[in-house]
Amino acid sequence: TPPTFTDPHQATAFLRQFHQERPGAGGPGPRLRQVLDEIDRTGTYEHTPEELAFGARLAWRNAARCIGRLYWRSLVVRDLRHLSAADDIAEQCFEHLRLATNDGRIRPVVSVFAPDRPGRPAPRILNQQLVRYAGHPAPGGGWTGDPAGAQLAARARDLGWKCGEEPFEVLPLLVQERAGARPEWYEVPDDAALEVRLTHPDHGWFAELDLRWYAVPAISDMTLEIGGVRYPTAPFNGWYMGTEIGARNLADADRYNLLAEVAGRLGLDTSSERTLWRDRALVELNVAVLHSFQEAGVTMADHHTESERFLKHIAQEKRLGRPTPADWSWIVPPVSGGLTPVYHRYYDPVDPALRPAFLAREPW
Amino acid sequence: TPPTFTDPHQATAFLRQFHQERPGAGGPGPRLRQVLDEIDRTGTYEHTPEELAFGARLAWRNAARCIGRLYWRSLVVRDLRHLSAADDIAEQCFEHLRLATNDGRIRPVVSVFAPDRPGRPAPRILNQQLVRYAGHPAPGGGWTGDPAGAQLAARARDLGWKCGEEPFEVLPLLVQERAGARPEWYEVPDDAALEVRLTHPDHGWFAELDLRWYAVPAISDMTLEIGGVRYPTAPFNGWYMGTEIGARNLADADRYNLLAEVAGRLGLDTSSERTLWRDRALVELNVAVLHSFQEAGVTMADHHTESERFLKHIAQEKRLGRPTPADWSWIVPPVSGGLTPVYHRYYDPVDPALRPAFLAREPW
Ligand code: HEM
Ligand code: HEM
Repeated sequence: TPPTFTDPHQATAFLRQFHQERPGAGGPGPRLRQVLDEIDRTGTYEHTPEELAFGARLAWRNAARCIGRLYWRSLVVRDLRHLSAADDIAEQCFEHLRLATNDGRIRPVVSVFAPDRPGRPAPRILNQQLVRYAGHPAPGGGWTGDPAGAQLAARARDLGWKCGEEPFEVLPLLVQERAGARPEWYEVPDDAALEVRLTHPDHGWFAELDLRWYAVPAISDMTLEIGGVRYPTAPFNGWYMGTEIGARNLADADRYNLLAEVAGRLGLDTSSERTLWRDRALVELNVAVLHSFQEAGVTMADHHTESERFLKHIAQEKRLGRPTPADWSWIVPPVSGGLTPVYHRYYDPVDPALRPAFLAREPW
Repeated sequence: TPPTFTDPHQATAFLRQFHQERPGAGGPGPRLRQVLDEIDRTGTYEHTPEELAFGARLAWRNAARCIGRLYWRSLVVRDLRHLSAADDIAEQCFEHLRLATNDGRIRPVVSVFAPDRPGRPAPRILNQQLVRYAGHPAPGGGWTGDPAGAQLAARARDLGWKCGEEPFEVLPLLVQERAGARPEWYEVPDDAALEVRLTHPDHGWFAELDLRWYAVPAISDMTLEIGGVRYPTAPFNGWYMGTEIGARNLADADRYNLLAEVAGRLGLDTSSERTLWRDRALVELNVAVLHSFQEAGVTMADHHTESERFLKHIAQEKRLGRPTPADWSWIVPPVSGGLTPVYHRYYDPVDPALRPAFLAREPW
């Protein structure tokens, strides 16, 4: 057991913050001594359930790229640290999706599975998100499905998964217990992956495009780091902001790339960029996304409203004497940036060393 | 004469770069000795016409916020360093506008007037741009004209200028010869301020809004600094990118704020942000701007095309072994950011100490 597996300075800083922000918890002294002793003996330490919940919420509050932080206190934290078998992880990920979906009234949830321990790295989910669509090069050129799901689809097929031929095939969940081990794969049950069919309030033909998207964006490839302890398997979700689907997933040239088709159906003049046909098609695609989620009763924020909320969050934090580090280029929405109040200001600087945090996961 | 008025290190660095990038000019040795001696004797030095032209173009190439840098070599540099009387400056600013307008085929131009010298700060133009519109609070609440032009309009009125009551009244040019001196004001001649009336290709009613904008954006409140020498009066212009007018000047809540009116005329449902009425009105406003400049034969770039050009510029500079520092939040257009290729990448970091540069002008 290398005694420095979990950094005692990180542990100390986190516990101090925990006791400072939650005065009911008393002074940090006794707990600090206990934790440092535990690190001394075992190389790491175990969070109390309260520390875990606080740490996860703080990691959200600290997420400089996230516009949705106003509700950081409401994050539902599922303590699943006792689980590290692939079957159990998959089962609980599907349960996560059901809880988060909540019949359409989306709840922000994080499920925290076993952490990395000395000599025993935690198992990992290989998917970028718990629900995402497969993609593969189409026989005639171009793509079927989501190019962002191509790598995982190929890997799942190698493992024996049979991929359908439709453009919106939900990928199986791939869980790998150890570096180099063969990943297990699990079909996402229908009742865990709510999807919304896309229609447009003014254009009947839009439904014929046969588009849809899933209700819950649950990121599953980031490591949650709290007080020096790393949880590489801690999928979390909020609700969607419409532009993530309408301006990126369905519009980006290296994703579903639908602007030309939508523009064609709208009868726009695509002979020159100056007609702004791309911009017009983009707006109508986003109108369809917001309209369809509304009709389906699934929580979704538009970028104007979510921008207002974020400024409210900053003001609230400021009253509490806290900065809100934010990354302008991630906060400003990809549609009509200049129309949103978040465009017209600067933010507290981002500190990559800030913890607790959700971090890009390192390779095994 | 304080001998350190012009920093000899800045002078040296600039002259080295000049001689390095223009090998035809020979080694920097003799010129360096001459300049350092001149600084020693007079506190500053005089650029050769070639150094001035090179330095101004370099300042454009270095402008981290500018998406239009592909054509930096083509900048027309007018050497007017012998002029420092208000009348002469005004006359030559109007001549600048005529040259830049060029019957609609806009040319990038900079006019360099007298620099700051030891004990003799240069005169200054008080306007933000050579052509801009006046604004004043309207009697019934709200604004007439451009709120961004309110301060200068008030100042010009104090000096005796008579402001009309229309929403697009061109401000007079204010030139101040010395700190504390009474500024002189000059009506911009009609033939120096080409304007474009705005119409929409599909909506006849758009013309009834009676909107227009001027053809040449000529920034007049930045200091051009080259090799330690400061030129506080060096107005420069490019051509417009449509979004500057359609998404900022006419759309911003603290500028002409026209989105609600355009949305009303378009018959959009403004009862909720979710209908994206703002985004739709924004696109149509921008369509009108691009269409109208095209019809009037006035050069204007759309944000898609200008984004492509900027990536071409970066590639070209890279082949020459040079970085292209860029400020993401200024480069990405305020409309459909995510649709432009400039959105999907990072840039070489910005160094505020980089020179030559156009800088925010310090107060007297
Ligand atoms: C409640 C509604 C939420 C909304 C509307 C929201 C919105 C967003 C958006 C629009 C992004 C940028 C995504 C992109 O451009 O790829 C983002 C990023 C992020 N959000 Fe949120 N979010 C929400 C909840 C959450 C929650 C619950 C967490 C964690 C507990 C979280 C943590 C993050 C993180 C870590 C990122 C950066 C992801 C990365 O680096 O790829 N967010 N969020
Ligand atoms: C030729 C066509 C040009 C185009 C399309 C163009 C485009 C732009 C745009 C869109 C901005 C951002 C403006 C804003 O958001 O307020 C900008 C900023 C800037 N441009 Fe250009 N530009 C052009 C020519 C020039 C020239 C000729 C110069 C100097 C010689 C120049 C120097 C700058 C500088 C210094 C800024 C930053 C201004 C500030 O800090 O407020 N540009 N440009």
